[in-house]
Amino acid sequence: MGGSLGLALKRRGWTGGIAGWARKPGVRAAALEAGAVDRVEDTAAAAARGADLVVLCVPILAMPGLARDAAPGLKDGAVVTDVGSTKTWLEREIPAALTGTGASFVGSHPIAGSEQSGFDAARADLYEGSVTVVTASVGRAAPAAAFVREVWRFVGSAVIDLNPAEHDRIVARTSHLPHLAATLVAIAAGRDGASPAVRALCGPGFRDTTRVAAGSPAVWRDILESNSGAILDELQALRGGLESMIRVIEEGRFDEAQQKLEQGRQARLSLWKKNTGEESP
Amino acid sequence: MGGSLGLALKRRGWTGGIAGWARKPGVRAAALEAGAVDRVEDTAAAAARGADLVVLCVPILAMPGLARDAAPGLKDGAVVTDVGSTKTWLEREIPAALTGTGASFVGSHPIAGSEQSGFDAARADLYEGSVTVVTASVGRAAPAAAFVREVWRFVGSAVIDLNPAEHDRIVARTSHLPHLAATLVAIAAGRDGASPAVRALCGPGFRDTTRVAAGSPAVWRDILESNSGAILDELQALRGGLESMIRVIEEGRFDEAQQKLEQGRQARLSLWKKNTGEESP
Repeated sequence: MGGSLGLALKRRGWTGGIAGWARKPGVRAAALEAGAVDRVEDTAAAAARGADLVVLCVPILAMPGLARDAAPGLKDGAVVTDVGSTKTWLEREIPAALTGTGASFVGSHPIAGSEQSGFDAARADLYEGSVTVVTASVGRAAPAAAFVREVWRFVGSAVIDLNPAEHDRIVARTSHLPHLAATLVAIAAGRDGASPAVRALCGPGFRDTTRVAAGSPAVWRDILESNSGAILDELQALRGGLESMIRVIEEGRFDEAQQKLEQGRQARLSLWKKNTGEESP
Repeated sequence: MGGSLGLALKRRGWTGGIAGWARKPGVRAAALEAGAVDRVEDTAAAAARGADLVVLCVPILAMPGLARDAAPGLKDGAVVTDVGSTKTWLEREIPAALTGTGASFVGSHPIAGSEQSGFDAARADLYEGSVTVVTASVGRAAPAAAFVREVWRFVGSAVIDLNPAEHDRIVARTSHLPHLAATLVAIAAGRDGASPAVRALCGPGFRDTTRVAAGSPAVWRDILESNSGAILDELQALRGGLESMIRVIEEGRFDEAQQKLEQGRQARLSLWKKNTGEESP
């Protein structure tokens, strides 16, 4: 996410300098080589030194620690944001990690990315056509929030303001639920191993339904932990639907099964409006 | 499926004539206009008259009736195949429908297509790079099976021979399970309606995980009915995995949750080998 942001800012002509830090020296070298950053530093504090904006791009539970590491470099009035998929926990923990600095925090969640992670997966067009949620409470840090919105718009994302709790409840449904369903389908489909015949019969439907299951377990572990209540609500709704589907099929009530298929079709069509031309087969 | 087959045969230079029949006269006219067929007929029997190969492309439970309608036109030695997603039921019912004709039946299942249906969704390249299962029992109707395999290869599909029961067990896992999971995720995600905020936060993960839920409920109803036993096995495996995931999250055992995410990731990577370059983001 961070690599893509640097590439996107550069491609679109961002005039400010961009400093980068990554835990692995090899990733720093690759980001510099690819032109995603103008310079890299050995510490988060050095990368944050003098910056107007600091974007934290690590798994959620690692973000407060990274904010603390960056804190000695933060100038007065610096803005800190992040790219995490849950917001309530971060809106509590990151401001706490920034105590004593003159920096303010605004949460961001760019809804973009793929099942790939790491700098090798960075793409300058990752944010084009995406939506980014900004969780700035109205009236708090208004200039900081405006700056954060501007940066996401600059790289091609539309911005939506939500409060953290509403954000977390909605993404549990639109992102965390599909992710866990994909994981569980992959586990079930692979439960006897992957014989050549089973692999051969995995077609476009399997490919797309399970794509996100290949995402980073470390990133998703932290999403589960930091949004477990809302996620459990979604998994219980899924369980209810699954039990009902099993019962209908067991009892041979296929007209009712068809009604459920129709209900799922209508739900999908109403939730995914951008479904012309950008579907894979 | 039939429209795409006609377009593909024509694009690749099939020299035999192609006759088509569809229930709706408007679809016949569209297929003729698009060049998917050389002629259309008012009845299935007329379209089948003199044909070397007849391909049945309707929902599964409608196939035996269509075979009976076509039967008066079938010449001695004609080969009948289909494109249905389940095979055991069709391998019993279609030969019965062809009793008294000199035609033989070979089952086909091209693993291709999208969530769209109808002639408007026909694509000349639909079968390129796909896999088609042919369920010809060895030694039975060998020349007929060879002809069917040749046609699928002609339009760009790789062919795999399986017996019908094995086919049905595997596609329950690789296709019917993902389809129902997509349906159930869409139903759960849409359970309170589709508010603008919920729609805005449906990103690429939601798009891909639920894509197939937009498929034809009529087509999928018949798949459920004709393969209910194998499908129930898969749904019960999914339920077991879901219940385990819920328990692990409820009890706060996130390291175990991460192991499950890793297990899903490995299963997906081992089942979907063609995952370089053709992933959507």
